[in-house]
Amino acid sequence: MSATNGMLDPDDSVILLIDHQSGLFNTVRDVPIPDLRQYVTAIAKTATLLNIPVITTASVPDGPNGPLIPEIHTHAPHAVYVPRTGQINTWDNPLFVQEVEKTGRKTLIIAGTLTSVCMAFPAVSAIQEGYKVYCVVDASGNWSKLATDTTIARVAQAGAIPTDTFAIVAELMRTWNRPEGSRFAQILAEHVCPEYKCLMESYDKAQEIAKTGPETKLDKYQ
Amino acid sequence: MSATNGMLDPDDSVILLIDHQSGLFNTVRDVPIPDLRQYVTAIAKTATLLNIPVITTASVPDGPNGPLIPEIHTHAPHAVYVPRTGQINTWDNPLFVQEVEKTGRKTLIIAGTLTSVCMAFPAVSAIQEGYKVYCVVDASGNWSKLATDTTIARVAQAGAIPTDTFAIVAELMRTWNRPEGSRFAQILAEHVCPEYKCLMESYDKAQEIAKTGPETKLDKYQ
Amino acid sequence: MSATNGMLDPDDSVILLIDHQSGLFNTVRDVPIPDLRQYVTAIAKTATLLNIPVITTASVPDGPNGPLIPEIHTHAPHAVYVPRTGQINTWDNPLFVQEVEKTGRKTLIIAGTLTSVCMAFPAVSAIQEGYKVYCVVDASGNWSKLATDTTIARVAQAGAIPTDTFAIVAELMRTWNRPEGSRFAQILAEHVCPEYKCLMESYDKAQEIAKTGPETKLDKYQ
Amino acid sequence: MSATNGMLDPDDSVILLIDHQSGLFNTVRDVPIPDLRQYVTAIAKTATLLNIPVITTASVPDGPNGPLIPEIHTHAPHAVYVPRTGQINTWDNPLFVQEVEKTGRKTLIIAGTLTSVCMAFPAVSAIQEGYKVYCVVDASGNWSKLATDTTIARVAQAGAIPTDTFAIVAELMRTWNRPEGSRFAQILAEHVCPEYKCLMESYDKAQEIAKTGPETKLDKYQ
Amino acid sequence: MSATNGMLDPDDSVILLIDHQSGLFNTVRDVPIPDLRQYVTAIAKTATLLNIPVITTASVPDGPNGPLIPEIHTHAPHAVYVPRTGQINTWDNPLFVQEVEKTGRKTLIIAGTLTSVCMAFPAVSAIQEGYKVYCVVDASGNWSKLATDTTIARVAQAGAIPTDTFAIVAELMRTWNRPEGSRFAQILAEHVCPEYKCLMESYDKAQEIAKTGPETKLDKYQ
Amino acid sequence: MSATNGMLDPDDSVILLIDHQSGLFNTVRDVPIPDLRQYVTAIAKTATLLNIPVITTASVPDGPNGPLIPEIHTHAPHAVYVPRTGQINTWDNPLFVQEVEKTGRKTLIIAGTLTSVCMAFPAVSAIQEGYKVYCVVDASGNWSKLATDTTIARVAQAGAIPTDTFAIVAELMRTWNRPEGSRFAQILAEHVCPEYKCLMESYDKAQEIAKTGPETKLDKYQ
Amino acid sequence: MSATNGMLDPDDSVILLIDHQSGLFNTVRDVPIPDLRQYVTAIAKTATLLNIPVITTASVPDGPNGPLIPEIHTHAPHAVYVPRTGQINTWDNPLFVQEVEKTGRKTLIIAGTLTSVCMAFPAVSAIQEGYKVYCVVDASGNWSKLATDTTIARVAQAGAIPTDTFAIVAELMRTWNRPEGSRFAQILAEHVCPEYKCLMESYDKAQEIAKTGPETKLDKYQ
Amino acid sequence: MSATNGMLDPDDSVILLIDHQSGLFNTVRDVPIPDLRQYVTAIAKTATLLNIPVITTASVPDGPNGPLIPEIHTHAPHAVYVPRTGQINTWDNPLFVQEVEKTGRKTLIIAGTLTSVCMAFPAVSAIQEGYKVYCVVDASGNWSKLATDTTIARVAQAGAIPTDTFAIVAELMRTWNRPEGSRFAQILAEHVCPEYKCLMESYDKAQEIAKTGPETKLDKYQ
Repeated sequence: MSATNGMLDPDDSVILLIDHQSGLFNTVRDVPIPDLRQYVTAIAKTATLLNIPVITTASVPDGPNGPLIPEIHTHAPHAVYVPRTGQINTWDNPLFVQEVEKTGRKTLIIAGTLTSVCMAFPAVSAIQEGYKVYCVVDASGNWSKLATDTTIARVAQAGAIPTDTFAIVAELMRTWNRPEGSRFAQILAEHVCPEYKCLMESYDKAQEIAKTGPETKLDKYQ
Repeated sequence: MSATNGMLDPDDSVILLIDHQSGLFNTVRDVPIPDLRQYVTAIAKTATLLNIPVITTASVPDGPNGPLIPEIHTHAPHAVYVPRTGQINTWDNPLFVQEVEKTGRKTLIIAGTLTSVCMAFPAVSAIQEGYKVYCVVDASGNWSKLATDTTIARVAQAGAIPTDTFAIVAELMRTWNRPEGSRFAQILAEHVCPEYKCLMESYDKAQEIAKTGPETKLDKYQ
Repeated sequence: MSATNGMLDPDDSVILLIDHQSGLFNTVRDVPIPDLRQYVTAIAKTATLLNIPVITTASVPDGPNGPLIPEIHTHAPHAVYVPRTGQINTWDNPLFVQEVEKTGRKTLIIAGTLTSVCMAFPAVSAIQEGYKVYCVVDASGNWSKLATDTTIARVAQAGAIPTDTFAIVAELMRTWNRPEGSRFAQILAEHVCPEYKCLMESYDKAQEIAKTGPETKLDKYQ
Repeated sequence: MSATNGMLDPDDSVILLIDHQSGLFNTVRDVPIPDLRQYVTAIAKTATLLNIPVITTASVPDGPNGPLIPEIHTHAPHAVYVPRTGQINTWDNPLFVQEVEKTGRKTLIIAGTLTSVCMAFPAVSAIQEGYKVYCVVDASGNWSKLATDTTIARVAQAGAIPTDTFAIVAELMRTWNRPEGSRFAQILAEHVCPEYKCLMESYDKAQEIAKTGPETKLDKYQ
Repeated sequence: MSATNGMLDPDDSVILLIDHQSGLFNTVRDVPIPDLRQYVTAIAKTATLLNIPVITTASVPDGPNGPLIPEIHTHAPHAVYVPRTGQINTWDNPLFVQEVEKTGRKTLIIAGTLTSVCMAFPAVSAIQEGYKVYCVVDASGNWSKLATDTTIARVAQAGAIPTDTFAIVAELMRTWNRPEGSRFAQILAEHVCPEYKCLMESYDKAQEIAKTGPETKLDKYQ
Repeated sequence: MSATNGMLDPDDSVILLIDHQSGLFNTVRDVPIPDLRQYVTAIAKTATLLNIPVITTASVPDGPNGPLIPEIHTHAPHAVYVPRTGQINTWDNPLFVQEVEKTGRKTLIIAGTLTSVCMAFPAVSAIQEGYKVYCVVDASGNWSKLATDTTIARVAQAGAIPTDTFAIVAELMRTWNRPEGSRFAQILAEHVCPEYKCLMESYDKAQEIAKTGPETKLDKYQ
Repeated sequence: MSATNGMLDPDDSVILLIDHQSGLFNTVRDVPIPDLRQYVTAIAKTATLLNIPVITTASVPDGPNGPLIPEIHTHAPHAVYVPRTGQINTWDNPLFVQEVEKTGRKTLIIAGTLTSVCMAFPAVSAIQEGYKVYCVVDASGNWSKLATDTTIARVAQAGAIPTDTFAIVAELMRTWNRPEGSRFAQILAEHVCPEYKCLMESYDKAQEIAKTGPETKLDKYQ
Repeated sequence: MSATNGMLDPDDSVILLIDHQSGLFNTVRDVPIPDLRQYVTAIAKTATLLNIPVITTASVPDGPNGPLIPEIHTHAPHAVYVPRTGQINTWDNPLFVQEVEKTGRKTLIIAGTLTSVCMAFPAVSAIQEGYKVYCVVDASGNWSKLATDTTIARVAQAGAIPTDTFAIVAELMRTWNRPEGSRFAQILAEHVCPEYKCLMESYDKAQEIAKTGPETKLDKYQ
């Protein structure tokens, strides 16, 4: 068995964030838009924390598709942006593929808006060229839920691994037993699963009370 | 007709944020928890912007209910916190009612977790004492959607006005034609309706392109 | 009993279409956006067919809210547009109220984006000034379904009549026994209820077959 | 203002649990059946804790409607069972009304399966005779969600107060500052809101860790 | 208190089934069409069982609206059909109102397709003329769920009682203790709540087994 | 290519209807129970029309599982019933497998309540023995929708073909150009897709009107 | 790797639009009917723009199934219509297969109403004969969502590629950098994703404002 | 064919219950939390009944993730708990894998919170090492439904068998014809499918009535 126990190898991985643009986001119906922004941010921060290469691109960002959301390059300042010249499938853009090849890595983590186009098309292309591909479906955003259902079936059929934001961050971090452990927890609590943020706050309060004693004066104002 | 055209008068209003606690949030099922945190934050920031008094309280925050979420007092530093001594209906707490009375205002904007308890009970009580009451249902958070349905019917029957976060912020700001106009837009885009944030980004980009010319090189790599 | 049997009187009615703007439409989550465009179009065409005055307005259309959707003035060329100067509640704009008063009519049919703000606020204001108000909830568009639920309760509590696009068109046309009958059917089939368009097509085909005989050659290629 | 701040008075209340029968439960579609059993149990336990009279009845329990679920009389052993002789509206049964009158109380808390029949009918009848009525919609159970929607509107129109299981328990207990406080918490955590049970377990663990120190050995097996 | 305990009086009731036409049914989205057919059938059979007058009408049944579904007159052969001459609100048709007046009854049970038009309009009209009106929302059928939500609010606001098929049948039959008891059960099990039919079958089998002994040979083929 | 164009061969098929029992039906949550009864009836009638063997079985029908619904043997009187002696997977019952083998057919059409147990288990077993298996998911009925989702994935993974009631009837009938054509249409309209029944009624009316002329008197009562 | 990067080759493709008939559309429950009409129109227009052959057929269009929706042949005037003689699976019709073979193309893009029958059956048949098949699930229309779920699994299992309308149009156009670029955008905005139409309108307005200056007079009517 | 007819062999099975912790449960959104607790309990009891080894583990239970829910070790006292030292994928923990190997069994039944991480990761790892793996999706609990959809596709693609709680219990018990039969029924009725509990109660009552005669006195109080 491989050293990764079948999980992806962060050192062999590159993250492709494709067409996360403000205009396109306004067409997304399968993931709530605020959540989608947060999930992409989580992936950007994780990439930075682990020094995983990030390649971004945008489709005609000077038209109604709108600009890339700023969070990506803010939180992954090392990300490389590759302009496109009209290609819908970013794998049709030689510059983009060159940028992937430059990393020398063979595992691709792909998210793209729209899911059934910008995520699915390069996923299918890359698999055909021998890459191992993870598709982060909920960090992508699609124009309908039914389109997402067909896309999950399509990319799985093609050999890509469908996954979600929480799972891909967890698969990359692999263990809490590392210096960045608490920063991963922050990323998940802040951007992916705010229920967890509540748990952290409650936990801290419970521990504080254990030390300082109760606060509610049940003996007053009966 | 009144000067407010039937809308609430911000100068007569006081905001009551009741039991927005981390533990209770983990029991909420009718509003996504990340959204709920954002909506409460939006109301806190609006209160600060307009100098509207805010009164907070918590129910046994030293137990599993957990602490008040920190956003409220962070973004509404003028808020007054009134500890309770076990009362479920905060209107049963004389200190809380005194704090309301101190403001001299007669319009209450109430949100509370759980909606059918912590929002609804003081709403019913305050109406009986002659207050005009707005219930911000989606800044409250309830343990089931069916419970929210019954609560909307209950508070409307009692004479309270059911409303939502976007509407209450808009009713308080009343016009964009004021110095704080852009800050209101920020609050709504950041905390209530992130779709709007996308629109602002796209708008800025479109205007920039109008000035600097197109960016996509459609003439290359055909 | 009144001559209208409790229904609205088209000759006393004026239609207020408030803030149906492209940008705001991208924030709507309770009605599918394509349907929303169609419903507003249906109302505009109905107004034209019946010579009912239409007043439109927009909120900061030169910003991210975007322009009025063109369908309204295209299909209701007699509509009067009243610019606003920042007021959120269009009833706070004296020019708008004057325009309403100029019609001399006392029944208002209101739709507005967002429902809980742009439809609900002037509805509440107008009721207080003695108008009879119909709120067309599904020709409005809101940022959340829960906000729509609270708004239905709020406007009903205030005395406005909540209704829907199909119902308001039907209440205005009142009878099929009029010269415009078939044009109403077209409006409903084309813009409100495309299931009905299918029925019309099937009906025509069935009648044609009744005259020309069957078309399928079941005797061939067994 | 009344001593109850508009809340119900437990000392004036009687709980009517109508037709919670195993067969009828198999027809319920608006509340998950396991939840429904739990909610009724919570109300039975609360009644016992507060010595509030409970009256039960069943509709033809010797036929397909099936027997009363045993939880009620198990957890409210003081409950009085009144057999019916075919009446659908239990208020048509003189014995049942006599049993209510015997308590001398004028506030009725009603739950019944089906909601739109067994809860709604006696609620309407009792209001007409001057009782104050609370309808616990989610401790009732109906054959369709649409039927529940119409029923909430019907009973509110008739003057009954629609409420939910969590709210009615909270309205009865009124304060945590009483000897039974922790038992109420148990009822809510065990039967109404199991999310809360998780919070209690987490709270206890956090406090224990605060005292005994961390348990995970992050220094091992790196 | 009235002899009916606030329930409707079958002897004062007349059932109005308006525009239940095959074509219109194909536009219904809020109630599954097979269920809708069954609910209308249940009401027709109940009317026959109790000798309650039924008045039907259809809107342009010779066009795409299609014919009345045959079940109504099949199962309520005493029903009187009133043709319309184009009126959308059947209360605008003098012949229809005369037919209602002929019965001398003042309680109307109305269902109509579409709910927000064919049920709601005559409901509003009849209330204004002093009738007591029940609206059977789920035996009506509407073009959208949101339209049904607004209609429930509208008719309740106007003073009509919103109800459902199961509840109206139960309110009419009032007691199982009558010769027709088992026929009511059949109607409900066959047309309204097939879950109940399963219960009846299971009940019969269980009783049979109690008499004849077990059937499964657990001692074989181990 | 095979003579069937990849479709199943009715002459090689046998239908297995497993555990469609009244009690088990009351536990089904993924398909409405009335629809489920109708779908099973449609399959029974189709089997009879095409002389396809049907084998039924029941799991402890003398206990709470209840009796087989009577529709199956009523509408497929040639069906063979095989009692079980406790086996959950009917393929573990030698008598049942023998009955399948007796038919000499190798294509199995399986439906069973619960889907993830009574349909899935024998499907997996039969595939292992070389049968071609169709799983009729919506004629089965499962205890949760999530369980159905996992079951579709499981049986597809095992090599069974997931299908639905409409599709299996259509795959069996293959062409309308056969004597039984109209009876298939009746089965589908009556039991599977009542929307289609409406279409048939509208079609007949439209053809009748084409011959007899219009019926609505639009010239009267203006 | 192939020249298409794993995407389909438009020059090898033929589009099969099967049984998009007005009557059948009235039985569709998994895709809103207005959307379905639009999606089919988008595919017809795309075919015309790219000169891709289109073959249509209808199942007994002279009966209740109704006529082909007119949009297809209007927007794809080059489409060839092949009548059927009763076959349900259009691949059983020799004329239809001949028409496919005449094109000499080996990639089939199939949409058909109902999805689980008219789309799925010929997809399975064509794969067996060596064609590459794309199934456009949301341009098909099915009688239930569960049937669509099983169909996605079935066609993927058989080797067909499940996709959606937006994706297939994008896969066919491949790049914006072509003369027809803006016409593709129009097709998507008008027929597939009206949210995008809003974005285009907002974009144009923003650019206009960048040139002509602001429009709202915030300095007036304060 | 194997002796198991393709079903799992209980004697070769070991159950892995991973990270069912109170804190993590508060982040679950795809399965109702009370149901999730019950499903895990059902599996624990089944393991005990059949003497199947159970291995549990927890992820940082001394932090906000919270303690293991107590039900597991209460109802499966033979379960072995393996502490982790930070690994997210429990298969990365050598102690855990050793514990699995100690059993000598090669069929793993895995449930874990979160589904897409704690269940999916070790499932993928174990398949790679040659284990047969069952994934109990609804006894796991995930942070979003979409994440569960992708996970079902992922584990099926990897070769694991997706299943549900009811199915796995049934696959383990295999036949009712065993001494533990009635205890399995209790487990399913109490913890998995409370609808079934109702059926059992109704069954017992029906049999009792068959023996003792009717109970309802329909002859009284007419």
